[in-house]
Amino acid sequence: MTIDYREKIWCEKNKIHLDFNYVMQEFIGPEQGLFEEDFKSLDTKINHAIEQIKNKHAEKKLEWMNLPYNQESVVEEILNHAEYVQKNFESVVIFGIGGSALGPIALQQAINHPLYNELSKEKRKYPKFYVADNIDPERLVYLLDVVDIEKTLFIIISKSGSTSETMSQFMIIKNLLDEKNKELAKKNIVCITDETKGNLIKIAKREGYKTFYVPNGVGGRFSELCPVGLLPAVICGIDIKKLLAGAEFMDKNFSDEPKNNIATKFALINYLAMQKKQKNICVMMPYADSLKYIADWFAQIWSESLGKAVDNDGNLINIGQTPVKSLGVTDQHSQVQLYNEGPFDKIIVFLEVEKYRKNIFVPKTFEDIDGISFLGGISHEDLIHAELKATEFALAKSKHMNMKIILPEINEFVIGELFFALELATALMGEFLNINAFDQPGVEEGKNATYAIFNKPGYENKKHELENMLVKRQDYFV
Amino acid sequence: MTIDYREKIWCEKNKIHLDFNYVMQEFIGPEQGLFEEDFKSLDTKINHAIEQIKNKHAEKKLEWMNLPYNQESVVEEILNHAEYVQKNFESVVIFGIGGSALGPIALQQAINHPLYNELSKEKRKYPKFYVADNIDPERLVYLLDVVDIEKTLFIIISKSGSTSETMSQFMIIKNLLDEKNKELAKKNIVCITDETKGNLIKIAKREGYKTFYVPNGVGGRFSELCPVGLLPAVICGIDIKKLLAGAEFMDKNFSDEPKNNIATKFALINYLAMQKKQKNICVMMPYADSLKYIADWFAQIWSESLGKAVDNDGNLINIGQTPVKSLGVTDQHSQVQLYNEGPFDKIIVFLEVEKYRKNIFVPKTFEDIDGISFLGGISHEDLIHAELKATEFALAKSKHMNMKIILPEINEFVIGELFFALELATALMGEFLNINAFDQPGVEEGKNATYAIFNKPGYENKKHELENMLVKRQDYFV
Repeated sequence: MTIDYREKIWCEKNKIHLDFNYVMQEFIGPEQGLFEEDFKSLDTKINHAIEQIKNKHAEKKLEWMNLPYNQESVVEEILNHAEYVQKNFESVVIFGIGGSALGPIALQQAINHPLYNELSKEKRKYPKFYVADNIDPERLVYLLDVVDIEKTLFIIISKSGSTSETMSQFMIIKNLLDEKNKELAKKNIVCITDETKGNLIKIAKREGYKTFYVPNGVGGRFSELCPVGLLPAVICGIDIKKLLAGAEFMDKNFSDEPKNNIATKFALINYLAMQKKQKNICVMMPYADSLKYIADWFAQIWSESLGKAVDNDGNLINIGQTPVKSLGVTDQHSQVQLYNEGPFDKIIVFLEVEKYRKNIFVPKTFEDIDGISFLGGISHEDLIHAELKATEFALAKSKHMNMKIILPEINEFVIGELFFALELATALMGEFLNINAFDQPGVEEGKNATYAIFNKPGYENKKHELENMLVKRQDYFV
Repeated sequence: MTIDYREKIWCEKNKIHLDFNYVMQEFIGPEQGLFEEDFKSLDTKINHAIEQIKNKHAEKKLEWMNLPYNQESVVEEILNHAEYVQKNFESVVIFGIGGSALGPIALQQAINHPLYNELSKEKRKYPKFYVADNIDPERLVYLLDVVDIEKTLFIIISKSGSTSETMSQFMIIKNLLDEKNKELAKKNIVCITDETKGNLIKIAKREGYKTFYVPNGVGGRFSELCPVGLLPAVICGIDIKKLLAGAEFMDKNFSDEPKNNIATKFALINYLAMQKKQKNICVMMPYADSLKYIADWFAQIWSESLGKAVDNDGNLINIGQTPVKSLGVTDQHSQVQLYNEGPFDKIIVFLEVEKYRKNIFVPKTFEDIDGISFLGGISHEDLIHAELKATEFALAKSKHMNMKIILPEINEFVIGELFFALELATALMGEFLNINAFDQPGVEEGKNATYAIFNKPGYENKKHELENMLVKRQDYFV
């Protein structure tokens, strides 16, 4: 029996929602809370932002918005290739960083077994999954302790083909494969990169590697729904058609009710929280281990898109909410003390799961022990729901702004909705703030300084600047 | 050959340092940077804080400060028991939350192989290591897919014996063990709790479980150097004598030079950053995968200790820096755009490792490809050092405050120093802010509401309050 992911009742049942009661003044008071008039006063701004998104989309500047629609043949190619990979490889390793890593990690953690790699081959069914998104020198060496490179597929992801971290990992692994057998690299390397530009496609073509493309106009942090996210997902048994159907459903929600959907509301509330109530921190706190890395993925898209020095009119604004990753209930024993009693400088966004995939009941083991006997007979699902409710309540009571994204359950469709909603929200927030949400000029300085340190041609001036930096003082050192 | 961890030259070689040049105005300008006079103006405050720490220590209010000194017999007992565990169990599972989990995770990740559980038994040598610090209903079910409970030691950690999450997990596992064999729980359960107070010690004594104690006056987030951290560490082959020697070395540093050591400077700089320059966010960004969870541990101790509503004189202050976890170089492709261009509301604390335990060189594979050929011949250690230097430079250039804790290498001694330095810094910061760094009143509200939801006796008023809460509005919901 196949489910039709476009069937209306099924979609509505799997629709994600936003509960923003506890950002409103009725619940957290007029000093910290928002008023209905605050929303109304932004009406022109909202209309303009929606208009801008539509226009930019029409001008082919937001190509990530097409990903739910235009990948039919790519998806087929990915499904075919994944089948080959599943049959021929024991492990998959992603070499990629930033968006090329965070999306695949978040999706894998959301859908698959949390101890996937430790499952027996029979239970796991698909290849083991690793992401090497750092150049910590220990990391790659230790990874090679557990994977047999001859039976490992390496997915090299770099849109530009110039990412130093990824390219250096690629060079190391290419060499190791060549040392084993000159034919191996051709079989064990797949590249996901720009179709025409950059060094990675150049090398891939010359060496005869299998390639998939990051479509034109899809930047790293908006790339999860293109082959960057799709290929590794399928290899590990994740249903990408269902994922894309969720994204499509969210996109249609936005088209149908541009002002009254989760993405627009999410952006709007954060905008008001920042501009009216100085909430310069946005905490994302999923109440589910499986959604922990969604907060990491969100931290990237939110901070890299919206942390900007200059607005579209050239004004110096140095703006940006700082995203904070948290996890319920775990961080109730870590961060929540601060959230409850600390400064009124943050908005907390909970992710709630209505129905978990598994549940376990606490037995009535110690009925004679006062203080814990009340736990007997309740389930962990009951407990986690109660703790979220209690935390929301406590935060609202202490007048700390919080809202909640509600996921009916965790499946690919729902995660597709969530990814797409937060991508849309990011784009809308960029419009509200009048900034470019799609560039990252602030990472250039560090990149260029790295190039200069290694004497890359063309960076002589930067080298000179580094050499002429003020010398550090020994008395500013203990 | 045994190293004497108290030998002076060895200690100095393993001493951690703090480089705070880039918090100073010479480097980041007078608007964002600190002046030497800022430090001098706090002289009385510093002396008072140090005095307070000494007094409270003498009054036995800071018993965690004694942990490097007073555990000789406990350590022997732990070593003995660990040997038994290593011989008789395949896995170890910690049930604990907050400080009971974050310290053990941070230490394990810092010292052991990053893919420890995936190593073959021969390479790993010691039992597999799991921490179940959440009551996500899926988590425990999935954990039971990979561990054989008959061959697993369960370490139940709750000082009070009333932690709902931990106690419920304990009850579930006790029942599962009983179902297998009534004698099993006695062998497979160890409790770490208060020696005399609470339900866990009561149950442990009645059931005949092996116990270790959280010493009087040692709170959860300051418990890593007591059996809470020591027992799981030893079981996984970590040298706890070396760890404690590092803590002792740091304590002596503080005693010898109370005003000029890393802990005091760290607290002082953060205090000045907060109070003079509105840096209400403290980012910890280790440049090492192995130190990633140190940032999680720090996030707890910093936020739960220092996020407070009321000061020692009863004034409502709602204070507290928000700690943010980051990872270099990975988050250069995520957070650094915001750090470089965003608001001047944060201080970034890098953790640098001078010498990694492994290194790998990039081969000269693509010498003909402009743009990546410069990578050929450099090592990942070179690359990560260069990227840290470049990031520091870029942040300083954009006038964003940053400093750097330098670890000569990663070993137990160094991690012991780091834990103790940050514990001391937290206590000192509490004094600077004139708050109680050792309580957590802000988590009571949520806890009590949870109890009320489950009709725990004594929480009838809270139940009544919850039932009389303002009903959520459906129009604040999309």
